[in-house]
Amino acid sequence: MIGRLNHVAIAVPDLDAAAASYRDTLGAKVGAPQDEPDHGVTVIFIELPNTKIELLYPLGDDSPIRGFLDKNPAGGIHHICYEVDDILAARDKLLDTGARVLGSGEPKIGAHGKPVLFLHPKDFQGTLVELEQV
Amino acid sequence: MIGRLNHVAIAVPDLDAAAASYRDTLGAKVGAPQDEPDHGVTVIFIELPNTKIELLYPLGDDSPIRGFLDKNPAGGIHHICYEVDDILAARDKLLDTGARVLGSGEPKIGAHGKPVLFLHPKDFQGTLVELEQV
Repeated sequence: MIGRLNHVAIAVPDLDAAAASYRDTLGAKVGAPQDEPDHGVTVIFIELPNTKIELLYPLGDDSPIRGFLDKNPAGGIHHICYEVDDILAARDKLLDTGARVLGSGEPKIGAHGKPVLFLHPKDFQGTLVELEQV
Repeated sequence: MIGRLNHVAIAVPDLDAAAASYRDTLGAKVGAPQDEPDHGVTVIFIELPNTKIELLYPLGDDSPIRGFLDKNPAGGIHHICYEVDDILAARDKLLDTGARVLGSGEPKIGAHGKPVLFLHPKDFQGTLVELEQV
């Protein structure tokens, strides 16, 4: 069912410092910050040859990553995103196996303009998993 | 400097359950467990079209992931591994920028038989970064 690893998302307490770290220290291709008000984050994409790193910084008072950064003040890996061909078919198959889909269970439009869903970390080895239809 | 994302490593408290979750629930291609006594882990590789997920389970009393699982009993993402062409050149450039290399600073041979180094999470947004020469 799952296909490519679309991205690894890292929540960071200082977006400029994190961008500098990836650009200047690790020598990666770092994009410009993009505000995603619907998701409560400002995002910077780092393009690797085979996938992306997504740096996440809180935007607004209700940012879904604020609690994560309170618990992990230095930052940390927040989630990983796998691609699927058909997100509704994937969701229904997952629900059949007893896995839990977060929120309403209906896909939202993610940072790349594609439908996404999040799966409960307790069902996947403590890892928050995002599925993105590509 | 960094190239492809070689793998994302997830420490898991139950290797069979984690393998079943990726194989049966997420429908991924899951390999056989491999003991890596030099690294204190048993590893299962999950082959995605563009990269790998590495499931890590403690092997032996001195496993380097035992402490991580004590703190994260459900499991969690342990590190991410970026590929580099020349690990000694990468190390020296990192040290010049003030980044900290863990251990002796000399590369070890990793689970894929290639030289690896680990970088301090405090220098990379709370993320343990492995570099692997490919």
